[in-house]
Amino acid sequence: MELVQIVFDRFTDLDVFLAWDLLNRVRRPDYRVRLLGTQPSHTSITGLTIPMHGTIDEAKHADVVLFASGPETRVLMDDAGYLARFALDPRRQKIGAMCSGALLLAALGLLEGKRATTYPTTKDLLAALGVTVVDAPFVVEGNIATGAACLAGIDLAGWAIASLLGEEARDAALAEVAPVTPN
Amino acid sequence: MELVQIVFDRFTDLDVFLAWDLLNRVRRPDYRVRLLGTQPSHTSITGLTIPMHGTIDEAKHADVVLFASGPETRVLMDDAGYLARFALDPRRQKIGAMCSGALLLAALGLLEGKRATTYPTTKDLLAALGVTVVDAPFVVEGNIATGAACLAGIDLAGWAIASLLGEEARDAALAEVAPVTPN
Repeated sequence: MELVQIVFDRFTDLDVFLAWDLLNRVRRPDYRVRLLGTQPSHTSITGLTIPMHGTIDEAKHADVVLFASGPETRVLMDDAGYLARFALDPRRQKIGAMCSGALLLAALGLLEGKRATTYPTTKDLLAALGVTVVDAPFVVEGNIATGAACLAGIDLAGWAIASLLGEEARDAALAEVAPVTPN
Repeated sequence: MELVQIVFDRFTDLDVFLAWDLLNRVRRPDYRVRLLGTQPSHTSITGLTIPMHGTIDEAKHADVVLFASGPETRVLMDDAGYLARFALDPRRQKIGAMCSGALLLAALGLLEGKRATTYPTTKDLLAALGVTVVDAPFVVEGNIATGAACLAGIDLAGWAIASLLGEEARDAALAEVAPVTPN
């Protein structure tokens, strides 16, 4: 099974790296996580450049597709050529987004008639696309999930793992990063 | 003011990236965050390669020095040449570590007679170095702070920001990533 994260320039660091770390805590030979973009590497909003594992054209083959966030989503949502490369299928794929990544889900037609959450500064724009925007850290509608803000990435990654492997696998992954509690 | 994160190969992704994202949410012309290592880039335990901004020899000039974690700490803690390059001064610097990064603090003599926390699998080794290991997500002893596990990176980054700029600056940075709450 394959999970991919969609990355672009000026991505919000934590919206990629939090899910990336958590998803990689599942260790199975038939499971892999990859970062997909349009270039060999992409640079975050803070200036961190990271290599990609493949291109967005490969997202259609993944079991789970998670979109990052960042100011570039406002540009990419109007880029028909970019959007056409995904060819996602929400009937057989789990698809999610963090924060302003919900704009790309909407632009791909995945949020029509659906509820979704997003970062506060993106709410009006997402609502203008016909989405019912709700104030919640995490919203699931069928095979589509949205999270807001960064720390809701824990919910998003947990949802992805549980969708593929069950709640026990999710709980095991999240337990590894939970702060140590006094005994 | 300058904050640096000490990175090495096989670092735990979230123990670098969570603090990195949060620390970068302070936006002031006299403030910067940099990643320091021993090579031009380092590769995480999940295989993500990121560029460094400088070498560990520069850590002695920083206001805040935060150590990452990972299996390499068990090697580096016995590497006298590596440790000698830091020349840190806990009287004028705030120094912290995530998880197994506490081993490096201990090896640098920064935890003598002090309480500290670390990842459960590192507890015995840290205690053997003479440190009083406590079960808590975050421990501050004067200018030295330790966090365990990954999500305690929020406490560590918050402590660093508050130490330099006060609690209001810390709260503003953390508010940006707090999940959206129902209204």
